[in-house]
Amino acid sequence: MNIAIIIYTLGRVLTISSAFMLLPAAIGIYYHEKVWLVYLVVGLVGVLAGLIISIKKPKNMNFFAKEGFASVGLAWLLLSSVGALPLFISREIPNYIDAVFEMTSGFTTTGATILTDVEAMSHAALFWRSFSHWIGGMGIFVFLLAVMPMVGGVNMHLLRAESPGPVVGKLVPKMKDSSQILYLIYIVLTLLQIITLCIMGMKPFEAICTACATAGTGGFGIYNSSIADFSALIKWNVTIFMILYGINFNVYFLLLARKFKSMFKMEEVRAYLLTIIISVIIITLNIFRTYDSFGKALTDAAFQVASIITTTGFATCDFNLWPALSKTILIFLMISGACAGSTGGGLKFSRVLIVFKAIRQEIHQFIHPRSVKAVGMDDRTVDKNVVKSVCVYFILFAVIYFGSVLLISIDKYDLVTNFTAVLATMNNIGPGLEVVGPTGNFAGFNYFSKIIFIFDMLAGRLELYPILLLFVPPMWKKH
Amino acid sequence: MNIAIIIYTLGRVLTISSAFMLLPAAIGIYYHEKVWLVYLVVGLVGVLAGLIISIKKPKNMNFFAKEGFASVGLAWLLLSSVGALPLFISREIPNYIDAVFEMTSGFTTTGATILTDVEAMSHAALFWRSFSHWIGGMGIFVFLLAVMPMVGGVNMHLLRAESPGPVVGKLVPKMKDSSQILYLIYIVLTLLQIITLCIMGMKPFEAICTACATAGTGGFGIYNSSIADFSALIKWNVTIFMILYGINFNVYFLLLARKFKSMFKMEEVRAYLLTIIISVIIITLNIFRTYDSFGKALTDAAFQVASIITTTGFATCDFNLWPALSKTILIFLMISGACAGSTGGGLKFSRVLIVFKAIRQEIHQFIHPRSVKAVGMDDRTVDKNVVKSVCVYFILFAVIYFGSVLLISIDKYDLVTNFTAVLATMNNIGPGLEVVGPTGNFAGFNYFSKIIFIFDMLAGRLELYPILLLFVPPMWKKH
Repeated sequence: MNIAIIIYTLGRVLTISSAFMLLPAAIGIYYHEKVWLVYLVVGLVGVLAGLIISIKKPKNMNFFAKEGFASVGLAWLLLSSVGALPLFISREIPNYIDAVFEMTSGFTTTGATILTDVEAMSHAALFWRSFSHWIGGMGIFVFLLAVMPMVGGVNMHLLRAESPGPVVGKLVPKMKDSSQILYLIYIVLTLLQIITLCIMGMKPFEAICTACATAGTGGFGIYNSSIADFSALIKWNVTIFMILYGINFNVYFLLLARKFKSMFKMEEVRAYLLTIIISVIIITLNIFRTYDSFGKALTDAAFQVASIITTTGFATCDFNLWPALSKTILIFLMISGACAGSTGGGLKFSRVLIVFKAIRQEIHQFIHPRSVKAVGMDDRTVDKNVVKSVCVYFILFAVIYFGSVLLISIDKYDLVTNFTAVLATMNNIGPGLEVVGPTGNFAGFNYFSKIIFIFDMLAGRLELYPILLLFVPPMWKKH
Repeated sequence: MNIAIIIYTLGRVLTISSAFMLLPAAIGIYYHEKVWLVYLVVGLVGVLAGLIISIKKPKNMNFFAKEGFASVGLAWLLLSSVGALPLFISREIPNYIDAVFEMTSGFTTTGATILTDVEAMSHAALFWRSFSHWIGGMGIFVFLLAVMPMVGGVNMHLLRAESPGPVVGKLVPKMKDSSQILYLIYIVLTLLQIITLCIMGMKPFEAICTACATAGTGGFGIYNSSIADFSALIKWNVTIFMILYGINFNVYFLLLARKFKSMFKMEEVRAYLLTIIISVIIITLNIFRTYDSFGKALTDAAFQVASIITTTGFATCDFNLWPALSKTILIFLMISGACAGSTGGGLKFSRVLIVFKAIRQEIHQFIHPRSVKAVGMDDRTVDKNVVKSVCVYFILFAVIYFGSVLLISIDKYDLVTNFTAVLATMNNIGPGLEVVGPTGNFAGFNYFSKIIFIFDMLAGRLELYPILLLFVPPMWKKH
C-alpha cells in the first residue's frame, strides 16, 4: 500500500471540501446569523491544512485499484467528519456523533436526520446540509478531477472506486473531460430546477436548497413537513426532476451527442421508467379511496414512488399509513434503487437486470445442459466475471444488511423499524417505516446504532468495497 | 420431453403413496373412528390407478435432467393433492384447497396449518398429517428407489432433482444401496426417538406422531399447545433429535463406516453446530430476565433455536413476545436452515458457506487483482460453476420470495406477518411471526394467498427448479 499518495489525495479532498464551507458562511452573513464565522474559520483552517498536506507530490506515484479504494473510503470518512465540525462547534447539533451522522447522511445523499425540529436551524446550517447532497450526489472525486486532475492511473482508479454501477465507462477518452461534461450537465439541470421552482412560487432560498437536495437525490428538507405544504405544481416539478436525476447520465451525454439510437437502446433506463409507471398505477389504485380526489392520490403516489426509487427521500404524505400492498412496493423500490451512473442510490437497475438475466440463463442451462449462452445487455455480452461479481455484490449487500439489522436490534425498536432503518441508510434513501417513517427521525437510536448507520450509509453510497476494504488487514500490507 | 416415462414414474409414486394410506386406516380402526373407511377406499383406489398407469413400461427410456425435474415436480403435486383427498372426503377439512394446503405442508415438512383446533381431529387424520412429514422428510423418490429401483439414469436424475443441497453425492456406487442406507439410518433414528419418548412418559400414539414430525423436521403437533405442555425432559429429547435430523446424513454414514476423520472435517456440520450454540447463548441471555429460572429460559431458547434452524416448527413458547434481538436471530435461522443432505429445509448451511467463501475470494481479488484463488470446502475445490449456481440460487430464492410477499400483501395482513409467512412456507418452517406466530395459524388468509403458499412450500422443499421449470414453456417441447 502506497500510504504517501493516499495522504496526498486526502489533502486535496480536504482543501476542496473546506473551500465549499465559504458558501454557507456567505449565506450566514446574508441572513445576519452569527454562525457564519464558524463556517469561515473551519473552512479556512481546512483549506490551509489540506494545502500543507498535499504541497509535496509523493515520489512514488504507484497507484493501483487497492490505493483507489482506500483513498475513496478514507476521503468520504474525512468529508463527513470535517463537514460535521461547523454544526458541532456552533452547538446547532451539540453531540459530535449526531453531527457526523447528519453530515454523512448529507454527503451520501441519504437524507436521514437526527433533528426533531429542522425549522429551528440557521439558514447557513440548512444550506450546508442541502449543499452536501449536491456534492455527494455526483461525487467529490468527479469534482476534484474536473477542476484539478492528477496523473492517468490515479484518475481512473479513483473514479472506478467512487462511481456507482457494475461497469464504469468513460464518456470520452479523457477522464478529465468526462468529469467536466458530467458536472456541466449536473449544473445545468440544477439551475433549470432552481429557476422553474422560483417561477412556481418558491422563495430563492427554498428553491436552492430543494434543488440541491433533489439533484443529489438526497432528501433533506428545510421544513418539518418536507414538501407536503407546497403546491401540487411544485410537487410535480420535484417528482419529474427526481426521476431525471435517477437516470443514467450517459443518456444526457448521448442526447447532447445526438446519438438517439444508442440512447433509446439502454435497457436499464427503459426498465427503470417502466417500473415507475407500473408502481404509480398500482399504488394510485390501492390508495385513491382514502383521498378526496383521484388527482391528489396520483400526485402523492407519483411523488412517493419517484422519491423512493431514486432514493431521494422527500415526502408529501405519511406512507406509513398506506395499505400493505403499497408499502411492500415501496420496500421493493427501496431495494432496487435507480440507474447506475445516476446520482441515485440502491442496488441499481443494471445490477437487477443482470441477475434476472443470470437466472434466465441458469434455467436455460437446466433445459439445454449442453448449450452455452452468455448474458447480454444493450446488444453487448456481459463478461462472465461481471455477472459473478454482480451476484456476489447482491449477497455481500445482504450479508452487511442482515449483520447491521442484528446489531441494531440490540437497541429498543420493533422489527419493521429495524429492517427498514437499515435499508433506508444502506440504500441512501432516508425515511423507512414506523419510527423512521416520513414523519419520524433517527434521533431516538443509541450512539452504537448511529455508528452502524454511519457505516451503512458510507458502505451504500460507495458500493461496499471502498469502506469494507478499510477493515481488511491484508489491504495495509506493504507491496 | 419424454411424457410417457414421466407418466410411468408418476404411476409408481401414486401406488406407493396410496399404499401408505392403509396405515391411518389401521389407526382409525384401532380408535373406532369411522374415517378408517375413507382412508382404506382412497388408498386402494389410488394403488389400483397407479398400477394401471405404470403397468406398461414405456418403449423410449430416454431420461435426462429435464425429465427428472418434471417428474419430481409433478410427483410432489400429485402427492399433496391425492393425500388431501381423505381429509376432504371425510369432511374433517371441508374445503379442498385447505386440505391441499395442509397436506402440502405435511409432505414438504413445513408444518404450517390452517386448522384452528388440532385437538378436534380424528387420530387417523392426526397420524396421516404427522406421517406425511416422515415420508416427505427423506423424500418419496428416495423411498421409491430403495424399494423398487428403475434403470440407471432414471434413478440418478430423480434423486438429483429431489435431494437438498448444492452438490448431491452418492454414499456408495449404487443409487439403490444409497437409498436403502439412508432409509435404514432414518428408521433407526425414528424408532430410537419413539422408544425414548415413551420411556420419558409420552403415550405411544403421541410418541409416534411426535417422532414422525421430528424426523421429517415437519412440526405438525397433535395438541394446540404443540410441545409446550410436555415435561422438560421430553422437550430436551425433541431438541436433541431435531438437531440430529438437521445434520447432513453423510455424517451418520461416515460414522457407520468408521471414517471419523472425514466426519469431523465436514465444515458444514461444524458451522451448523456452532451457530446453534451461539444462538442459544445469545437468546438465553436476552430472555432469561422474563423467566422464573435460568434453566427454563435455556430450555425454551434451545428448543426454539433447534426448531427454527432445522425448520421443524414445533414450539414450547410464544417467541412472538421475545425482544427484537432474539426475534431477529430466529429470522436469520429461518433463512439459513439446516445442513444439505438432512431432512431440514432452508437455504442450507453449505450454500451459506459457499457464498461467504465467494465473497472472501472477491475481496481477495480486489487486493490482489492478478491472483487466482478458488473456493474450497472440506479440503476440496468447489467447481466454479457450482459457486455461480449457488449465487444464482440465492438470488432466485430472493426473487420468488419477494414476488410471493407482493402477491400476499394484496391480502389483509401487516408487513411482519406477510414477510415471515412467506419465509415460513418457502423454507418449510411452519410458524412465522405475528398472525402466523407459534400460537397462530394460516386459516385467515384468502384462497389466492393459500395457493401462493402451496407453491412456495413445494418450491422450497424441492429447491426451486423442479416446481419452477413446470411453468417454463420450453421445458415441454419435444426433443
